Amino acid sequence: SRSLNLAVIPGDGIGQEVVTEGLKVLSAVLPQDVKLETKEYDFGARRYHATGETLTDADLDALKQHDAILLGAIGDPGVPSGVLERGFLLKLRFAFDHHVNLRPSKLLPGVATPLAGQPEIDFVVVREGTEGPYTGNGGTIRKGTEHEVATEVSVNTAFGVERVVRDAFARAQARPRKKLALIHKNNVLTFAGHLWTNIFNKVAEEFPEVTTEYMHVDAATIYLVTQPERFDVIVTDNLFGDIITDLAAAVSGGIGVAASGNINPSGDFPSMFEPVHGSAPDIAGQGKADPTATVLSVALLLRHLGYDAEAARIDEAVSADLAERTGKPARSTSEIGDALAVRVAG
Amino acid sequence: SRSLNLAVIPGDGIGQEVVTEGLKVLSAVLPQDVKLETKEYDFGARRYHATGETLTDADLDALKQHDAILLGAIGDPGVPSGVLERGFLLKLRFAFDHHVNLRPSKLLPGVATPLAGQPEIDFVVVREGTEGPYTGNGGTIRKGTEHEVATEVSVNTAFGVERVVRDAFARAQARPRKKLALIHKNNVLTFAGHLWTNIFNKVAEEFPEVTTEYMHVDAATIYLVTQPERFDVIVTDNLFGDIITDLAAAVSGGIGVAASGNINPSGDFPSMFEPVHGSAPDIAGQGKADPTATVLSVALLLRHLGYDAEAARIDEAVSADLAERTGKPARSTSEIGDALAVRVAG
Ligand SMILES: CC(C)[C@H](C(=O)O)[C@@H](O)C(=O)O
Ligand SMILES: CC(C)[C@H](C(=O)O)[C@@H](O)C(=O)O
Repeated sequence: SRSLNLAVIPGDGIGQEVVTEGLKVLSAVLPQDVKLETKEYDFGARRYHATGETLTDADLDALKQHDAILLGAIGDPGVPSGVLERGFLLKLRFAFDHHVNLRPSKLLPGVATPLAGQPEIDFVVVREGTEGPYTGNGGTIRKGTEHEVATEVSVNTAFGVERVVRDAFARAQARPRKKLALIHKNNVLTFAGHLWTNIFNKVAEEFPEVTTEYMHVDAATIYLVTQPERFDVIVTDNLFGDIITDLAAAVSGGIGVAASGNINPSGDFPSMFEPVHGSAPDIAGQGKADPTATVLSVALLLRHLGYDAEAARIDEAVSADLAERTGKPARSTSEIGDALAVRVAG
Repeated sequence: SRSLNLAVIPGDGIGQEVVTEGLKVLSAVLPQDVKLETKEYDFGARRYHATGETLTDADLDALKQHDAILLGAIGDPGVPSGVLERGFLLKLRFAFDHHVNLRPSKLLPGVATPLAGQPEIDFVVVREGTEGPYTGNGGTIRKGTEHEVATEVSVNTAFGVERVVRDAFARAQARPRKKLALIHKNNVLTFAGHLWTNIFNKVAEEFPEVTTEYMHVDAATIYLVTQPERFDVIVTDNLFGDIITDLAAAVSGGIGVAASGNINPSGDFPSMFEPVHGSAPDIAGQGKADPTATVLSVALLLRHLGYDAEAARIDEAVSADLAERTGKPARSTSEIGDALAVRVAG
């Protein structure tokens, strides 16, 4: 019999609530013969406040034993900016070499968008996850004085760029429209930009069926609000990916339905799946959070582990649930989770 | 009698067409006693193709003699990416220390926006113009090999940050709503982020009437499409400013009406004013370009030089012209320029 050994990190704020529903739907969709084991880890602001720890070597060793990780949300206004981001979220992405940061954007029927005219939106962003301006390289001299200088170094390697570019081409090749856009700022960030552009063009030769285009990140924000239907697969750098995927989430139904995967395609380390939204302390504990983004992250998790049919059942259940929301009274976090669990089981 | 000694850089593509209309409106609005002198400079792709030059020391010496610079657009698909950006546009911004890159966004009545519900948009972005990831610091080793490493260094100084933050606070203080948002990514880019945040908080103490907020750049893209009315003045880094001002232009009527000023508030060097749009080679020479962004850039230029009443007349003329467009057949570049010239004169 098969097994799925999952690390669960509920985290802070609404994290616990949405993860509970994610697991509910996961249990409901998994085939009978798959033994689901979950182990909860108490990472995040609570633990940081109590112990000063964010993510230790022992924690990483423990997480390594799992097939995958499901995360709710990490963060709390009481923790200084950067501590949990650098000390937990990014530390985990780097330690487990999560270089493919996968963020699909699909505007589902019945879902509100801030854009006029309900455009067709269905694309996926492959954001590089272990390089660029996120490496933490840089520093500060003369801190706090009028002569302070602070630097941030974006580090880009042929190895790191080529593997995500390849991943993105393979994803584009597998989709009906077979389109791939590289987003960068190669007219200003010429060193990194040329590396990205050259590798993109080189790998493109191996994928003659994929139609490619290049777009500056500033122009891309315009297209994301004026012609979002033009995108199929996007590949981009870590920081540009951070920015455009929030915009993409906003135009395709909001961060309430935006899922993401921090993927290590080699399988050497477990991949991590999480909603794009944060811990939303203002609504925590009130049953108001929408667990849909977490449930969709569970679908990404299942697809990553080869449970394609089950992932598809979740996607269909979410589509059906969203399509029926219009005009109905708002449901609680667990009501939405219950409804989705029923749908995937049926 | 007064004089206005203007350097005019039409540039490439539609640059010539829109600049002609900008100058038409400028002549029409200027008081009789102001002697307008213009000198045209042939910078851009044409000159680069002909001579290999982008901007020489002699060019800079010549430009220095002027009160201000009006630029149309620079760029041509035949020039490798980065050559004119680094060799002309950014070289000029750095040489003349254009540290306040001013980009107003106002959704005028009658103007189409991709956003549903015609929100109220009226904010201005103060983008730092001489630091951050735009400095050109960085490099490449093992170029073209599988071991290539390319870096980009974002350089941020207390001096450079404080002067734009101060400029932004002063602008916020002078506006009715008196709100200022700092946009950065201080949870990831902690070195630069802390410098920006600390200086922002320090200067805030001198402006107790200004309401401040901090926002990560990724979250800012969400607010720009879901709640653009919340913004009044924004201050941000060079690269984040590049990205969010294109998005801001898109939601507030498109780059056809987006103006910008590259300002050196000290007056040691002439400031430069230009539409946000590019050279649009696909429609060049056909009289299809909308000169409105250039005309609004002329208004920014006039305001910078102290011609506040004249600048206001241009803004009003543009508002009136845009308000009457709906349902009318499209006009040519010069027809729009003529109409605006008549309005500002009357
Ligand atoms: C919280 C932060 C470190 C993170 C990022 O910048 O990657 C978040 O914005 C995201 O997109 O997952
Ligand atoms: C052309 C390019 C160098 C420039 C920039 O990145 O600043 C442009 O996008 C702008 O916003 O003025």
